[in-house]
Amino acid sequence: MKVNMNYKNIAQSYLFSTVAKKVNEFASKNPDKTIIKLGIGDVTLPLCEQVVNALKSASEEMGRQESFHGYGPEQGYEFLKSSLQGYYKEHGVNLENDEIFISDGAKSDLGNILDLFDKDNTVLVPDPVYPVYVDTNIMNGRKILYMNANQDNEFLPLPDENVKADIIYLCSPNNPTGAVYNKEQLKKWVDYANKNNAVILFDSAYECFITDENLPRSIYEIEGAKTCAIEFCSFSKMAGFTGTRCGWTIVPQDLVFDDMSLNKMWLRRQTTKFNGVSYIVQKGAQAVFTPEGKKQIQQNLEYYKENAKLISDVLTRHNIWHIGGKHSPYIWLKCPNNMKSWEFFDYLLENVQIVGTPGSGFGKNGEGYFRLTSFGSRENTQKAVERLDKFLG
Amino acid sequence: MKVNMNYKNIAQSYLFSTVAKKVNEFASKNPDKTIIKLGIGDVTLPLCEQVVNALKSASEEMGRQESFHGYGPEQGYEFLKSSLQGYYKEHGVNLENDEIFISDGAKSDLGNILDLFDKDNTVLVPDPVYPVYVDTNIMNGRKILYMNANQDNEFLPLPDENVKADIIYLCSPNNPTGAVYNKEQLKKWVDYANKNNAVILFDSAYECFITDENLPRSIYEIEGAKTCAIEFCSFSKMAGFTGTRCGWTIVPQDLVFDDMSLNKMWLRRQTTKFNGVSYIVQKGAQAVFTPEGKKQIQQNLEYYKENAKLISDVLTRHNIWHIGGKHSPYIWLKCPNNMKSWEFFDYLLENVQIVGTPGSGFGKNGEGYFRLTSFGSRENTQKAVERLDKFLG
Repeated sequence: MKVNMNYKNIAQSYLFSTVAKKVNEFASKNPDKTIIKLGIGDVTLPLCEQVVNALKSASEEMGRQESFHGYGPEQGYEFLKSSLQGYYKEHGVNLENDEIFISDGAKSDLGNILDLFDKDNTVLVPDPVYPVYVDTNIMNGRKILYMNANQDNEFLPLPDENVKADIIYLCSPNNPTGAVYNKEQLKKWVDYANKNNAVILFDSAYECFITDENLPRSIYEIEGAKTCAIEFCSFSKMAGFTGTRCGWTIVPQDLVFDDMSLNKMWLRRQTTKFNGVSYIVQKGAQAVFTPEGKKQIQQNLEYYKENAKLISDVLTRHNIWHIGGKHSPYIWLKCPNNMKSWEFFDYLLENVQIVGTPGSGFGKNGEGYFRLTSFGSRENTQKAVERLDKFLG
Repeated sequence: MKVNMNYKNIAQSYLFSTVAKKVNEFASKNPDKTIIKLGIGDVTLPLCEQVVNALKSASEEMGRQESFHGYGPEQGYEFLKSSLQGYYKEHGVNLENDEIFISDGAKSDLGNILDLFDKDNTVLVPDPVYPVYVDTNIMNGRKILYMNANQDNEFLPLPDENVKADIIYLCSPNNPTGAVYNKEQLKKWVDYANKNNAVILFDSAYECFITDENLPRSIYEIEGAKTCAIEFCSFSKMAGFTGTRCGWTIVPQDLVFDDMSLNKMWLRRQTTKFNGVSYIVQKGAQAVFTPEGKKQIQQNLEYYKENAKLISDVLTRHNIWHIGGKHSPYIWLKCPNNMKSWEFFDYLLENVQIVGTPGSGFGKNGEGYFRLTSFGSRENTQKAVERLDKFLG
């Protein structure tokens, strides 16, 4: 048996293990100092009450003969797809029920969608980038091109007509930078894709952090997107489902390449290689869309947003260039005094015992930048902000 | 963008849709007749109490700050892997903790494992076969060879030294036939694989139905299997998790091809393209292994086994050749009077209003055979058996 040799080409990432190692070393040398972690990329607030009640009640249903559920539809239950249809309608996007596929999370579908594409396609990803976009394509042996995201374009690269790409990854609000495309910018991408017969893989996992009504929360707010884009989203950040696992993927019916419907291909992929998301989890996800559920998840989102604002404000006060933090849980800052990313990491840890993530870990354009997140507790975030305020002042 | 053209080669299966169509037609023409479905391929008994309690309590944990769980390990929580380690030890199999990977079900992993293999491998599947083995490989453009399972070999084909295969699918107890390999037979496969540098994908989803201690429940009961086999199993049939979604895959550390560890490759695949199974569901699965949980799932298994015995007994009384039913929820019978599969389907529906699955739907060697299952209610199974007894007599 011959193995898939492309696995030899995947780079090992030591980003988070190096962070952990440095933090542990500092902590053991300085047992009296309190370290505050603002590098957390995971939600920390518990599931809201409505969701917990729905999960418990669905668990009970599964324990009774008359309400037991065996295999469900691989593409998700109608009740949850209908709720999502309604959610999209709120920002003016009309979707057919069978354009929505429920999954166990955006990460799975972002990887698995590549099953539908030939190896012989050129992939375009931004730099800095969420490493999963790159690694999943290296596993398939596809050619990858990078587009520069930097201070000049406010970390929102736009299409270059001289570059011929087939598969384009866009993430907005962006991980790791927190930058958000506006409608005009996204329209340029949609036009590029339609003109060049390319497909856009649009990762909108952080759309729930957008508060400005003029900013697009879905790529389908842009005319023409249904003939070129697949959208991936998730309950992870929206409702704290990182450990509960539920997401969704939109594959429009108008998405046709080589006379083949990507919607039908994805349906075939999912019915063959997937068996659907737990009924219990889907009932929990549905509760997010009840009036009380909406209110409760909104409170959590406000909590994180207020944390982000506190961090952004202290950086603004000290004239530190940064983006994100407004429509995103991430704050992406330029390291002061032209420090390199790891230099600034050490500097913060040594002086104020704040841990963040070096931007260079996300690509060469991340060098000299640094990511802070709003997923810490309010208390810790406030403490961190006070330390920064004093130290930078 | 070029799509994966292999999708054009996947055959559409009309097996279950044709069954449904025929049943609906009969029902509308004969509103006075009660139809009994013995074609069900899904569990019907509810989750046991221990599991439901664990699911509810884990849901509550997720609703409290101090016990909330965000992202878990992609390969599964230690608590569940330890329980599975103990489960394997019961039938004499020692596994390292990191050889066990928790998944959302055997179907997902059986499909996704192919990521690790080059396209240029020859796949060997039995005929009749669970269609997923075939379709997932067609999607990748691999060459597929079939081996004949038939009455001569009691639907348990053995290796043929003249056939060179790289990836071998074995399912024991088998779906759809219910046939079970003994240790000597499995040893032949393990020896063949080790000699020919092949990998065995061993689907043991029905191992919980085995009652004879001499029959292997895991391929790792066979010496040499750890250098050639990956095992896929699931809580679906064992504990009624078809709608709750949890399974596991064993990738031994000794499994090395082209100097690459399949264990490390699978870990990399899962950490890149998967985010783990819901914490809640994993807690539910863990409860299966508590003393009370074991007792409760055993009661359900006994219920299905008794149904299988009732069906098998009536066939034996009327000298109808069949296998399965003893260590399997499936009964695979030769259609009487040399009827073809669909002919017998119509015959049963018309005369005794019993619905089963035509064997021809699982491959050419299934022609002339028929599958009944034990997942119906006791009451319906008894009624069906009475009808058959009267009719065949």
